[in-house]
Amino acid sequence: MAAPSLLLSRRDLDFQLHTWLDTEALTRRARYAEHSRETFDGALELSERIAVEYFATHNKKNDQEEPRFDGERVHTLPEVADALSAFAKSGLLASAMDEEFGGMGLPETVALACFSFFQAANVGTAAYPFLTLGNARLLCAHGSREQIDTYVRPMLEGRFFGTMCLSEPQAGSSLADVATRAEERADGTYRLFGSKMWISGGDHELSENIVHLVLARIPGGPPGVKGLSLFIVPKYLVGADGTLGERNDVVPAGLNHKMGYRGTTNALLNFGEGARHRPGGEAGAVGYLVGEQHRGLSYMFHMMNGARIGVGAGAMALGYTGYLKSLAYARERPQGRPLTARGRDASTPQVPIVEHTDVRRMLLAQKSYVEGALGLLLYCSRLVDEQNSAPTDQERGRAGLLLDVLTPIAKSWPSQWCLEANSLAIQVHGGYGYTREYDVEQHYRDNRLNPIHEGTHGIQGLDLLGRRAVLDDGAGLRALGEAVTATVERAMAAGGEAAQLADALRTRWERVTTVTARLWETGDPAVALANSSVYLEAVGHVVVAWIWLSQFLATGERDDDFHRGKRQAARYFFRHELPRTDPQFALLEARDTTALETEDGWL
Amino acid sequence: MAAPSLLLSRRDLDFQLHTWLDTEALTRRARYAEHSRETFDGALELSERIAVEYFATHNKKNDQEEPRFDGERVHTLPEVADALSAFAKSGLLASAMDEEFGGMGLPETVALACFSFFQAANVGTAAYPFLTLGNARLLCAHGSREQIDTYVRPMLEGRFFGTMCLSEPQAGSSLADVATRAEERADGTYRLFGSKMWISGGDHELSENIVHLVLARIPGGPPGVKGLSLFIVPKYLVGADGTLGERNDVVPAGLNHKMGYRGTTNALLNFGEGARHRPGGEAGAVGYLVGEQHRGLSYMFHMMNGARIGVGAGAMALGYTGYLKSLAYARERPQGRPLTARGRDASTPQVPIVEHTDVRRMLLAQKSYVEGALGLLLYCSRLVDEQNSAPTDQERGRAGLLLDVLTPIAKSWPSQWCLEANSLAIQVHGGYGYTREYDVEQHYRDNRLNPIHEGTHGIQGLDLLGRRAVLDDGAGLRALGEAVTATVERAMAAGGEAAQLADALRTRWERVTTVTARLWETGDPAVALANSSVYLEAVGHVVVAWIWLSQFLATGERDDDFHRGKRQAARYFFRHELPRTDPQFALLEARDTTALETEDGWL
Repeated sequence: MAAPSLLLSRRDLDFQLHTWLDTEALTRRARYAEHSRETFDGALELSERIAVEYFATHNKKNDQEEPRFDGERVHTLPEVADALSAFAKSGLLASAMDEEFGGMGLPETVALACFSFFQAANVGTAAYPFLTLGNARLLCAHGSREQIDTYVRPMLEGRFFGTMCLSEPQAGSSLADVATRAEERADGTYRLFGSKMWISGGDHELSENIVHLVLARIPGGPPGVKGLSLFIVPKYLVGADGTLGERNDVVPAGLNHKMGYRGTTNALLNFGEGARHRPGGEAGAVGYLVGEQHRGLSYMFHMMNGARIGVGAGAMALGYTGYLKSLAYARERPQGRPLTARGRDASTPQVPIVEHTDVRRMLLAQKSYVEGALGLLLYCSRLVDEQNSAPTDQERGRAGLLLDVLTPIAKSWPSQWCLEANSLAIQVHGGYGYTREYDVEQHYRDNRLNPIHEGTHGIQGLDLLGRRAVLDDGAGLRALGEAVTATVERAMAAGGEAAQLADALRTRWERVTTVTARLWETGDPAVALANSSVYLEAVGHVVVAWIWLSQFLATGERDDDFHRGKRQAARYFFRHELPRTDPQFALLEARDTTALETEDGWL
Repeated sequence: MAAPSLLLSRRDLDFQLHTWLDTEALTRRARYAEHSRETFDGALELSERIAVEYFATHNKKNDQEEPRFDGERVHTLPEVADALSAFAKSGLLASAMDEEFGGMGLPETVALACFSFFQAANVGTAAYPFLTLGNARLLCAHGSREQIDTYVRPMLEGRFFGTMCLSEPQAGSSLADVATRAEERADGTYRLFGSKMWISGGDHELSENIVHLVLARIPGGPPGVKGLSLFIVPKYLVGADGTLGERNDVVPAGLNHKMGYRGTTNALLNFGEGARHRPGGEAGAVGYLVGEQHRGLSYMFHMMNGARIGVGAGAMALGYTGYLKSLAYARERPQGRPLTARGRDASTPQVPIVEHTDVRRMLLAQKSYVEGALGLLLYCSRLVDEQNSAPTDQERGRAGLLLDVLTPIAKSWPSQWCLEANSLAIQVHGGYGYTREYDVEQHYRDNRLNPIHEGTHGIQGLDLLGRRAVLDDGAGLRALGEAVTATVERAMAAGGEAAQLADALRTRWERVTTVTARLWETGDPAVALANSSVYLEAVGHVVVAWIWLSQFLATGERDDDFHRGKRQAARYFFRHELPRTDPQFALLEARDTTALETEDGWL
C-alpha cells in the first residue's frame, strides 16, 4: 500500500496482536490450526484495502446526505450498497464464524482488528454488517437448524441483513416494560403487534431481505423480563426453498435524525399495523419463535455481550483515526514558534504545531486513550478465543469470568475516552477541526452515540457494580485481580521503571477490592448503586492502566521510536490518568450519598 | 410570563445578582444612580421576552438552514434580520454603554445576565450584536470623535454591524505572523491588501453596512506583534454626512461550514483583491487608522478581554439552557422503577427518570457547572463595574488586578465544563438527546466552538501561567488569594459545614500558590509552560469552588427548596469536583515533563 491510510496504525496492531498478545500461539490449537501469521496478515491487509477503497470514500457523503424516508421506502446512497457488496464478497463478514457456516474461522482477536478498519473508515456503513453478524451469531447459538439454513446463510452471504428490536417508545432501557405482543397460531407461528424504537438498519433497500430479531410478550406469560420471548420477523416471508414471498406486516413509521452516525438508518417500526389497511387480511406480523418461550432475554444478552464489545471497538476506531489524522495535521501545519522565542523573532519561519508542547500533550493523551482502548478490546477478544479453544475447562472458565466482568468496561471506557480523544483531535486542528472540511468533527459527532446505545453509561455502571462484580461471590472481580496481580508481579521482577508503575497499579487495585466490599457493606443497594457510575469510571481507568503496564513490559529492551513511544504513552497514562482515580476511590470509600439525598425540588 | 422559558433560571439570577452580589448597592454610586432594582428587573424581563419570542423561535432553523454564499452575496434567514431588528429597537444592544452613546448605562453585571438570555436562546444569531458591541466599545475607547460619530452611533442603533479581523489563513493563534499590508495614502487614509480567516459576521445583508476592525502591518514598521496597527474598513464607504457611498474592496471568498454555531456566518475575506477586476481603479481596501500606528494589538487586547468573558458567558448560557431542558425532560419521561424493585414488579407504573439516582447525579453535576459558571461570570462583570465606579483608586485597582487574572478562567472554565454539562444533558435524554428532534444535541455542537475561538484552551493556559499569574510579581494572583482568603475566613467564622468546605478550599488555594512558584523555580519557561493547561484547569476548579463557597454562605439560614438546592450543588462541587485538582497539583508540583520530553517520532 502507498501512504498510510490514517485509519488504524498497522504497526501498533502488529505489536499488540503479536509482540504483546502472541496471537500466533492460537494457531497451535486445533480450532485455528489452518491459520498462520500469514493468513492473519492477509485478512488485515484485505480489510484495510476494502475499508480505504469502499468505506472511507463515502464517509462524509453518508453524513451529509443521510438516509431519507419517503413515507414508503428508505433511500440510501448507492455507495453504501457498493461498499457492503464489496465487504460481503470479501468473506470478511463471517471471518470469525466456523467454516460450517461459510466462515474463515479466524480468531476473534484478529476479526476485531479487521473490523475496526471498517469502523474507522465509515462507522455508519459498517453498522449494517455489525448488526447482521450479531443477529447471525445469536441464531447460530439458539436457532433451529432450519432457521439457520433459512436466515443465517443468506445473512453471511450478504444477501439478508439483520437487526435487533428491543426498545419501544415507552421502554428504552427498561425491557421489563416491553409491550409488543406475540400471539401463537395453530401452525406454531406467531403474529406480532407493537412498535419498536431506535432500530438501526430497521428499514432500507440495501439487501434482499431484513431479518428482525424481536423481543415480544406471549399473552399469559410471566410479567417483566421473564415473560419475553424472541422472534424472527423477516421483512419478506421466505419460502421453504429460500425464495422470497410476500411482504410481512412490519413497516417503518419514520426515521430518527441523529447528530452523527447518520449513515445508519434508525427507524421506528410498526409490527402488525398493516391489517388496518388490508380488509380481510390476517392481522399481525408473522414471527417465528427462537428457542423456547420466555427465554428471549437470555438469548439477547448473549448477543448483547458481543455487541457491547463491538460498540467499544467502534468508539476506539473513531478515536484512533482521529488521533492519526490530528497527528498528520500537526506535522504539516506551521503556526507560531517555540515558546522560548515567542513573539521575539517573527522573521524566522513558523514551526509545525507538533513542536508545541501543549499540542504534543494532546497527541500523547489521544495515543494513551486509543492504544489503551485497542489493547482492552483485543484482550477481551482473546478471552473469547480462550473460551472457544483453551485446552482445559479451568482455562475456559477463567476466560469466561474475566470476559464477563470486563464487558461493561470494554463498552464504556472507549466510549468515554475515545470521544475525549476526538475532542482533542478537534482541538489540535484549531478552527479547522470545527469545520466540516476536515474529518474530525464528524468522528466526534459519530462517537457521541457510543455512551448511549447498547446500554447507556449509567446502565453499564449498574451492570458492573450491581451484578458482574458481585455475582458468584465476586468470582469475576477475583479473576481480574489475579490477572492484574500476575502482571504486577512480572513488572516487579523486571524492576526499574516497570516496578514503579506496578507499585502504582497495585495500590489502585487494592482500592478496587476495598471499595467494592465497602459499597455493599450496608446491604442497601440504593446506597451502593448511587455510586455505580463513579465506580465504573474508576475501575475502567485501573483496568486500562493494567493494559498499559502489560504493553510496557512487552516492549522489552527494544529502543526504537515505536517502542519508546509505547513506553511514553504508558508513562503518560500512569502520571496523568491513573491518579484521577484517587478522588474517585475516596468518594466510593465514603459511600457518597450526595446524589441520593438530592430531592427533585432542589434541582 | 407563562411557563418558564427554560433559557436561564430567573430565580437563580435574582439570587446571584441580589442575595449574593448585592448588585443594587451599585445604584448608590453616581454612575448608576438612575437605576434601581426595578430597572434591572425590567431589563431582564425585556431580554427574556425578546429572546423567547424572536431568538429561540428560529434557533433550530438557523442550524438546519445555515447561511449560504452564492459567489457574490451571503444569504441568511429572514428570521435572523427580524430578531436583530427587535433586539436593536429594544435598546439592549447598548444597555451597558454610557447614555452619551445612546446606552442605558446599566451595570455590566446586569447587562451580562440580560445578554445571556439571547445566547441561551440562539447563540448563532446573538453573535452579531455580540461582535458589534465589542467593536463599538473598542472604538469608543480608542477611536476619534469622528470615528465614533460615523461608525459607533449607527452600530448602537443596529444599522451597522461590526466584526474583528485578526486571524489569517497562515496565522491563527500566531498574530506575530499577520501579513495583511496597509499602505498610507497622501490624504492620511490607508489601502489594505491581504486575507482574513474565521471572520464571524464577515459578510451578510443583515445590516446597512459592516464595520470591519482589521489588524494589519504598515510597511517599514517593526516585525512581529509590535508592528500591528488597527484599521476601520467599512464594507460601504461612509460620507461625511453619514450617507453610504461605494462598495469598498473587501469581499468574501467563501464561508466556513461548521459543526455548530451555524447561524453565524464565518467568512474568508479578501482585502484589496478587487483591483484586479477593475482596470484603472485604485487598488486596495480603504481603511482608517484607529489610534496610533503600531499599537493595534494593545487596542485589540482591550476588546478581547471583554470578548473572552462574553465567550464564557455564551458557553454558560448553552450549558444552562441544556440543564433546564434535561431537568424538564427528566421530570416528564417515565422509564423504569426504583432500583430496589427493579424488574420485580412490572405491573407497577414506571417512574419519571428524575427519580433515578444516576439521573439526579447528572442533573446535579450540570447544576454545579452552570450555576458555578454563571457566578464566575457575574463576579467578573461586577469587577468591571467596580473598575468603572468604585470610589477609590485602590478599589478600582484591586478590581482590575482580579479581573486580569480571572479572565482566562472566565473564558476557559465554562467552555470546558458547560460543554460537559451539555454532554450530560444529552445523556439524560438517552437516545432522544442524540436526535435533532430535541435541542440538546445542537447546544453540544454549538458549545464545542467555545474552547477554540477567542484564544484556544491552550492559549488561555499560556496566558494565565505565562503572563497574568506572574505579571507584576504575581500581584493578580495575590489579589485573588486575598479574595479567596476573605471568603474562607467568613466561612470559618460561620462554622459548621461552611467551615468544613472552607478548610477544603484553603488547602487547595495554598497549593495554587505553591505550584505557581514551583513551576517557575527553574527559570526555564519551557518546563513551566509545559504544564500550563493542567495549571489552567486546576486553578479554574479552585476558583469555581470559591464561587460556590461564597454562594453557599449567601444562602444563610434560608431552608426552602431553592436554597437547599444551592447548598447541595455546592456540596456536590466540593465532594465530586474540587478533589479532581489533587492529582493535577501533584503533577504541577512534580513539574511534569512527560509531554515536553516526547519526541515527534514517538507519536
